Amino acid sequence: MPELFTVLPPADALQVLFDRLPVQIRVEMIDTANALGRVLAEAMTSPAALPAFPRSTVDGYAVRAADTFGATESLPAYLALAGEAPMGRAPDLSVGVGQAAVVYTGGMMPSGADAVVMVERTQKLDAANIEVLRAIAPGENVINIGEDVKEGESLLGPGHVLRPQDIGGLMALGITRVQVAARPRVAIVSTGDEVVSPDVTPALGQVRDVNTYTVAGLVVRTGSVALPQGIIRDDFDALFSAAQAGLDCADALVISAGSSVSARDLTADVVNRLGQPGVLVHGVSVKPGKPTILGVCNGKPVFGLPGNPVSAMVVAGLLVVPVLWRMQGASQPLVRRVKAQLTHNIASVPGREDYVQVRLVEREGQLEADPVFGKSNLIYTLVKADGMLCVPLDSNGLHEGEWVQVELF
Amino acid sequence: MPELFTVLPPADALQVLFDRLPVQIRVEMIDTANALGRVLAEAMTSPAALPAFPRSTVDGYAVRAADTFGATESLPAYLALAGEAPMGRAPDLSVGVGQAAVVYTGGMMPSGADAVVMVERTQKLDAANIEVLRAIAPGENVINIGEDVKEGESLLGPGHVLRPQDIGGLMALGITRVQVAARPRVAIVSTGDEVVSPDVTPALGQVRDVNTYTVAGLVVRTGSVALPQGIIRDDFDALFSAAQAGLDCADALVISAGSSVSARDLTADVVNRLGQPGVLVHGVSVKPGKPTILGVCNGKPVFGLPGNPVSAMVVAGLLVVPVLWRMQGASQPLVRRVKAQLTHNIASVPGREDYVQVRLVEREGQLEADPVFGKSNLIYTLVKADGMLCVPLDSNGLHEGEWVQVELF
Repeated sequence: MPELFTVLPPADALQVLFDRLPVQIRVEMIDTANALGRVLAEAMTSPAALPAFPRSTVDGYAVRAADTFGATESLPAYLALAGEAPMGRAPDLSVGVGQAAVVYTGGMMPSGADAVVMVERTQKLDAANIEVLRAIAPGENVINIGEDVKEGESLLGPGHVLRPQDIGGLMALGITRVQVAARPRVAIVSTGDEVVSPDVTPALGQVRDVNTYTVAGLVVRTGSVALPQGIIRDDFDALFSAAQAGLDCADALVISAGSSVSARDLTADVVNRLGQPGVLVHGVSVKPGKPTILGVCNGKPVFGLPGNPVSAMVVAGLLVVPVLWRMQGASQPLVRRVKAQLTHNIASVPGREDYVQVRLVEREGQLEADPVFGKSNLIYTLVKADGMLCVPLDSNGLHEGEWVQVELF
Repeated sequence: MPELFTVLPPADALQVLFDRLPVQIRVEMIDTANALGRVLAEAMTSPAALPAFPRSTVDGYAVRAADTFGATESLPAYLALAGEAPMGRAPDLSVGVGQAAVVYTGGMMPSGADAVVMVERTQKLDAANIEVLRAIAPGENVINIGEDVKEGESLLGPGHVLRPQDIGGLMALGITRVQVAARPRVAIVSTGDEVVSPDVTPALGQVRDVNTYTVAGLVVRTGSVALPQGIIRDDFDALFSAAQAGLDCADALVISAGSSVSARDLTADVVNRLGQPGVLVHGVSVKPGKPTILGVCNGKPVFGLPGNPVSAMVVAGLLVVPVLWRMQGASQPLVRRVKAQLTHNIASVPGREDYVQVRLVEREGQLEADPVFGKSNLIYTLVKADGMLCVPLDSNGLHEGEWVQVELF
């Protein structure tokens, strides 16, 4: 039972992996309407000015601003109605000196006019004339050509994760197709002689597979596709052929290893055989999750996660998730983090990052983090928790009353 | 052009709607493996103890703890090997007084043994005997039956939004099907004589549809299904029949109204005709978004959003999103919020909530919120922003240097 050899802090381990991953991103063209949450793979510039014509932002009267100068409630400006600007068409009227035209919110400005008086600031004298009760400045209540976006203006850059307003903004400019990173396909292999499928009643000594599902959930949240490959027994040939088949049809491979030292060595041997350069990191200074393997096989990232379900999920969140975002060219989107006050001391050991599950409780308007204690392989410590906090690498622990950052699940 | 009549703050408007919505939730049974992000519609209790048998948490030797009492490096306890406990099966050996058995992480404890000595704390004397270099307590490095979850224990309640670890936890107990809230189907109608489809080149005076896409994006993010109904002209009969057809095939209806006062009145008339009780709120004290309509028609929520794309999206986030979560029985999941320091004064008017788009910038390790100024109908003010802050109902504005909560998009 040999000791683990290259134990690195999580950030360093990730960097080692990044350094050996291809920078090329697999891309595809898709309908913008279906691009929510996808990562943009091109720099978008505006093909046209938006709006393409000057628009009113209110319901009211398009006027020449100069005609309203000095107007007050007691000394209104009198203007003659030149007609009504229709919605959805260029108005076929123009506003001359001393004239006004009815316009609606979003409607095109008639020529001659340079501002819009809100209807609330006017009074109708008769069918042909109005009073304007307040002076307005040129440009008031008007959006000018290109005021939203200019032609050729940079809109969004590669690596941007598309949100609802981005889709809307692209549609506004008629950009109905976009180039995005293809969804990484992630093969997931679960190993362990004791592991059975959840739909099977386990015999004594057997447990149901958990890691396939927690890892798949994290994978799907990154916009990637999870390809579960089933449960493989702890045997080199069986594991190698399942891993190879998985990697062949995928862009990345996650093996949740058997948790015994011998099973972990098996995983390392398989990764080394799958392709060059093979295992890069064997052991990460994190608790739970130390016996983690990171490798690259023929340009594809390969992960050997601990078999323990808590370790597997913590490590997948810490190391697999950022790699899947990176493969899409995205900087990892802002994680959901909240500040809370710790309710109990947490002991740790310098030299490793400790991830501790916490429940968040609001007490007297303040958010408190209650650690969920329990042995590190109880899946329900994760189910009962709202998030995790990290005890840093060089820390002896955290104290009751300290403010901590909690990363929400 | 009549004034809006019932202007309520957003929270009150939402309450008026909630009070008239049916409490019944539409449910369905689905595979647990596909339930990520879905809202649980039943109380889950554990059908069995987890684990179902005592397990080792380390690689080492199963022993009777009493046999190790007093053991030290200089005065080790000598134990005779009784064999090896296999993975995935109940061991057919037992550990007697003065004996030890090889066990692996996750393996079932042999009978007789009550603790596991880590392999690092032992030395092998020969093929048949080991030395134990440290005393251990009974139960050490063992997970007992039911230590993760007891039979009959409450696992998760209705209204819980399922996360990766919840799926894993249910699978661990063989719960491969779950009852969840059905995805709300949301019909989306875009209106306006000036609005054309994004794949059309607009004539002067026309603009491409944005609201269908921003609203659909927000809808999809709640796990609901967006059913775009196309663009309808500002005409009572056309809008009524499109709205009715949409509502017939959906659980909720969103109309992004034409933005002129007359178009808004049209929407209100349509909502009143669609079913009982019709319009409940006409006008919300929020900027942007005042001209918003909330209604219930024959048990289904109906929303009339302003036509202005910024208003439509802000209001959809503020009022449509919580209703869609509510229809699934979920309290709205924690929103992503960060604290940042405001870089400019923001003026407001008491009596309304102002939503202001901000860009987040990290300066000297500190998060700052730069307001994205611009007329309230420029979609790219939303595209350029990372989130929004709210100037509260009773506030005159916010000051440069104040700490604010920014809700991330």
